[in-house]
Amino acid sequence: MRDVCVVGLGLIGGSVLRAAAAAGRVTWGATASQADAVAARADGFDVVGVDAALERARAQDALVVVAVPLPAVEDVLRALPEGVRLTDVVSVKGPVADLVARVAPHARYVGGHPMAGTSASGWAAGDAALFRGAAWVVAADDGADPDVFADVTALALATGAHVVPASAAEHDAAVARVSHLPHVLAAVLASVGADGGPLALSLAAGSFGDGTRVAGSRPELVRAMCEGNRGALLDAVDDALGRLGAARGSLASTGALAKTIEAGHAARLALRDRPEPTTATTVDLTSPDALEVLRDLGARGGRVVALDGTTAHARTS
Amino acid sequence: MRDVCVVGLGLIGGSVLRAAAAAGRVTWGATASQADAVAARADGFDVVGVDAALERARAQDALVVVAVPLPAVEDVLRALPEGVRLTDVVSVKGPVADLVARVAPHARYVGGHPMAGTSASGWAAGDAALFRGAAWVVAADDGADPDVFADVTALALATGAHVVPASAAEHDAAVARVSHLPHVLAAVLASVGADGGPLALSLAAGSFGDGTRVAGSRPELVRAMCEGNRGALLDAVDDALGRLGAARGSLASTGALAKTIEAGHAARLALRDRPEPTTATTVDLTSPDALEVLRDLGARGGRVVALDGTTAHARTS
Repeated sequence: MRDVCVVGLGLIGGSVLRAAAAAGRVTWGATASQADAVAARADGFDVVGVDAALERARAQDALVVVAVPLPAVEDVLRALPEGVRLTDVVSVKGPVADLVARVAPHARYVGGHPMAGTSASGWAAGDAALFRGAAWVVAADDGADPDVFADVTALALATGAHVVPASAAEHDAAVARVSHLPHVLAAVLASVGADGGPLALSLAAGSFGDGTRVAGSRPELVRAMCEGNRGALLDAVDDALGRLGAARGSLASTGALAKTIEAGHAARLALRDRPEPTTATTVDLTSPDALEVLRDLGARGGRVVALDGTTAHARTS
Repeated sequence: MRDVCVVGLGLIGGSVLRAAAAAGRVTWGATASQADAVAARADGFDVVGVDAALERARAQDALVVVAVPLPAVEDVLRALPEGVRLTDVVSVKGPVADLVARVAPHARYVGGHPMAGTSASGWAAGDAALFRGAAWVVAADDGADPDVFADVTALALATGAHVVPASAAEHDAAVARVSHLPHVLAAVLASVGADGGPLALSLAAGSFGDGTRVAGSRPELVRAMCEGNRGALLDAVDDALGRLGAARGSLASTGALAKTIEAGHAARLALRDRPEPTTATTVDLTSPDALEVLRDLGARGGRVVALDGTTAHARTS
């Protein structure tokens, strides 16, 4: 079991450190936040300076998990010793991969993104069980180091997550649609509602409450997440603008919203009724087409649920 | 206590009939649905034919509550005897008022809209407690009959709701923003997400689930509700298109979403933190400016919470 070094001990990093330790790994962490460092040490975790943590990772051939916000990633990369095993938990994958290629091309990097979180933040909000049952995307781009791909997959599985393999671009396009666009639309809806004044707010019920809920998240975190995925989010916003504009045109011209409402209903049912991935399959991580097979599996809604040496056990629907 | 005649015994009409009976009113109902009629009779309610129900309402000077979907309202109005006290529970008020003025100008009509409901429908889904704690908009347009305004207010209060007075146009503009636009945006978001394929749906978590929840409602009900409020909904959709277009422009040009996200966050906090209406005031329903005072009260987020003869007891923040 490979040692784990986590840099950044907020909600996600703190949860990774706890979950890895709970799974029996040797772990240590580092953070620029004095408050998080004090709190993590008080909880019995080994917290050292960033440079010391990274040097120890090199010496132990550990897996380094970068768990700082996107704007702080570059500084961590600059401090990275040559050739370490590296992953991250940032919510966007293309921009981090570009940064690694530019700043730390020597790193053995395979990106990751656990799809878990709460509106809370900081070490105190962390939880060893945060990732249980969650999807953890592991980047399966051509050229990824199969050995590190296995390291990241093993860590994700050890926390109770299942692994969804995808290219960085596929990941970014998907989360733009199902994670970042929802935040933009919630903000827009909240503002349009508030423009209706006290009367509108006094009549707001379930649909407005549901549709605006994530607008209550911390704006600086939402901004960092959405702005970090600019290219893919622009595509998703354009898709939404096109569909909303078509609804507007249809309502204005014929008075009908049939196409909009029925397509939305069918899509919601598709989400609710999506097939459970129950068909077992295996992927040999040492085979030359392993990454392609894994990406194809993820694109069809499949997941890796166990790792046995270099054999990934997967489920597809 | 005035007798209550409910025409249409689905979720809302059936709940009004039950709640009025539970409050001690003499009640009877009518419905075009044989299934609802059988079920309501089996539950001990007095259900007769539509013509007989309306004739009895005239003879007893009862309040008639039209609780059929908007497309079926005109037929009920055509069957209405001269001069009956009339309200409705349709989710849009301007179009119903126009219809009454055209088809049954003799009716003593004051529109209403209880802001309650579930995704279920039919008599069996009804509940005498459905309106407890809910807002019930009562139309306070100039020229409204103060006597019937008091009848509708008394019925709404008897069901456990509080009354929000507003003009038909103010109501329609408000619900377009906080009730109909959320359905349109949920449909758009669900479709954009589904366009991402199985990978996107396998990564969908809380924000996508919240943002698309009401897209699971029955499409024919959502269409009837949204299409019935065409004019006001177009304004709300245009507001959303403008804000979403501005977000797109800002993201494309500067990469920033600060304005969108921060405005949405402030609006969501305004919803969460809106002041409880705790300042007591009274409105004399017989005074010449009563309707104007009531509309102003509703526009400021106030509500009527009790009725004592012709004195309305209200709360404002």
